[in-house]
Amino acid sequence: MTTLAVVGLGLIGGSIAKACVEQKLFAQVIGVDKSAQTGKFALNNKIVHKFSVDLSIVEQADLIIIATPVLAFFSIFKHLAQLKLKANAIISDAGSVKQSVIEAAQILAAKFTNFVPAHPIAGSEQSGITAAISSLFLNHQVIITPTAQTNANACEQVSNLWRKLGAKVTFMEAKKHDQILAATSHLPHLLAFALVDSLAKNDQSLAIFNYAAGGFRDFTRIAGSDPQMWRDIFISNKNEVLSNLDTFMTDLTKLKQALIAQDSDFILASLRNAQGARSYFAQILAQRNKE
Amino acid sequence: MTTLAVVGLGLIGGSIAKACVEQKLFAQVIGVDKSAQTGKFALNNKIVHKFSVDLSIVEQADLIIIATPVLAFFSIFKHLAQLKLKANAIISDAGSVKQSVIEAAQILAAKFTNFVPAHPIAGSEQSGITAAISSLFLNHQVIITPTAQTNANACEQVSNLWRKLGAKVTFMEAKKHDQILAATSHLPHLLAFALVDSLAKNDQSLAIFNYAAGGFRDFTRIAGSDPQMWRDIFISNKNEVLSNLDTFMTDLTKLKQALIAQDSDFILASLRNAQGARSYFAQILAQRNKE
Repeated sequence: MTTLAVVGLGLIGGSIAKACVEQKLFAQVIGVDKSAQTGKFALNNKIVHKFSVDLSIVEQADLIIIATPVLAFFSIFKHLAQLKLKANAIISDAGSVKQSVIEAAQILAAKFTNFVPAHPIAGSEQSGITAAISSLFLNHQVIITPTAQTNANACEQVSNLWRKLGAKVTFMEAKKHDQILAATSHLPHLLAFALVDSLAKNDQSLAIFNYAAGGFRDFTRIAGSDPQMWRDIFISNKNEVLSNLDTFMTDLTKLKQALIAQDSDFILASLRNAQGARSYFAQILAQRNKE
Repeated sequence: MTTLAVVGLGLIGGSIAKACVEQKLFAQVIGVDKSAQTGKFALNNKIVHKFSVDLSIVEQADLIIIATPVLAFFSIFKHLAQLKLKANAIISDAGSVKQSVIEAAQILAAKFTNFVPAHPIAGSEQSGITAAISSLFLNHQVIITPTAQTNANACEQVSNLWRKLGAKVTFMEAKKHDQILAATSHLPHLLAFALVDSLAKNDQSLAIFNYAAGGFRDFTRIAGSDPQMWRDIFISNKNEVLSNLDTFMTDLTKLKQALIAQDSDFILASLRNAQGARSYFAQILAQRNKE
């Protein structure tokens, strides 16, 4: 593979391109984005070798990675289906949702077997090309969710690329991916956005933000994430997000009832269970950082 | 004031004692805790000069600061009322809730005028004497909520002590304090505990924690906080916590309905509002850290 095209130069796409340029993994790294200004920044900062606002430039590429917000995928796939791509061109993505992306990718028709659905679990509350860093994927996980039709060689090439960027690759069914990510990422983001939105509407919002301390900062940091990207994720993974949200609201309502009843034991048991799980999670993370 | 007694040597109490010993603000710093082991650690690590499991030792003190979980306050106040304290001994606290603490403090009877209700907004998901650090209050806010009966000189002395520990002191009505803290601290903690508890009960909890990344860590860090302390806070500030929780659940339900209806504009507007408020809060924090 000599030419990589990254479609969508945000934090994720920009970081992929930047890492590939720095590590010289491709003779040429092309960036595509609807914003010419983003392209200018990418070129000036050596994040890409070449840039175009026109998707047809990907006809030159051996590997095309789509890294736009996920609701834009369908029209990109549709456009790709009409382009004259290289014979064995591989198409992959960095979307946080996999079932709906795979469904949208069906429009690739004959090219669908060369589509490798992938999700790098990385990111931050920063967004956009200016936040791109080549070490973003180091020690992070990338989940690849091949379908029964996915070409094994294409899958292998995409996995190898991610490993070169420092990521740990695991394989999973798309449905399981969407269930797990709904719980571990989508629901927490939804709650953080909802809480900050709710507090901002409060009469005392000014005092609230003035007297908030560190814990609140941690809790709300993820509410600084890109709204459009997250709107797309919530809608694309609607069923799993709603299912997790319902479970959470049921559990939260139980805790609320316990508080109304001043059921001290129930409350303490819930908090202890959470603290225990949180300690377990902290250990996993510490272990992962050591590896 | 030559002698300070700190009742409850956890993260907050331990940090107050340690800072006062290091800065030599008192000739003598006495620690009181029901755990003799905690006392041993405090003495060995020069966090206190003297230690006792028996509260009566505070009869030697000019200033007594109560830093136990708040539901223990009433019995401590009751005991203090019976002790032969120094004539002008000042009593203060570090509780995260103020209205119920002031109510409990009424049992101090004649000594109530010398009670200065205070709340240092500091802490972390670490707890216990082993986490105590003398810089814990540096650049943090301390809210003092005097009542109409509070002695002005006592109030002044407590404020000065906090300023010496690097904190910024503000004054506020207890009711307003409890409303603001319910929104900015108690509700976020309740949600983080509830979310981690809920996810830990999920069939896929192992996979959830395995694939969780940085944003989740930030979000759930506060669920690692001390369960008993937080149980006490939720119960002591029940009405304000429930009121904020109700508002949040109403807003969350609206967002859920929008997701069911795929009302893309409503969702995007909520997320943008949250992101804007979050940026504003980040600016406040950055400004505060510069000061």
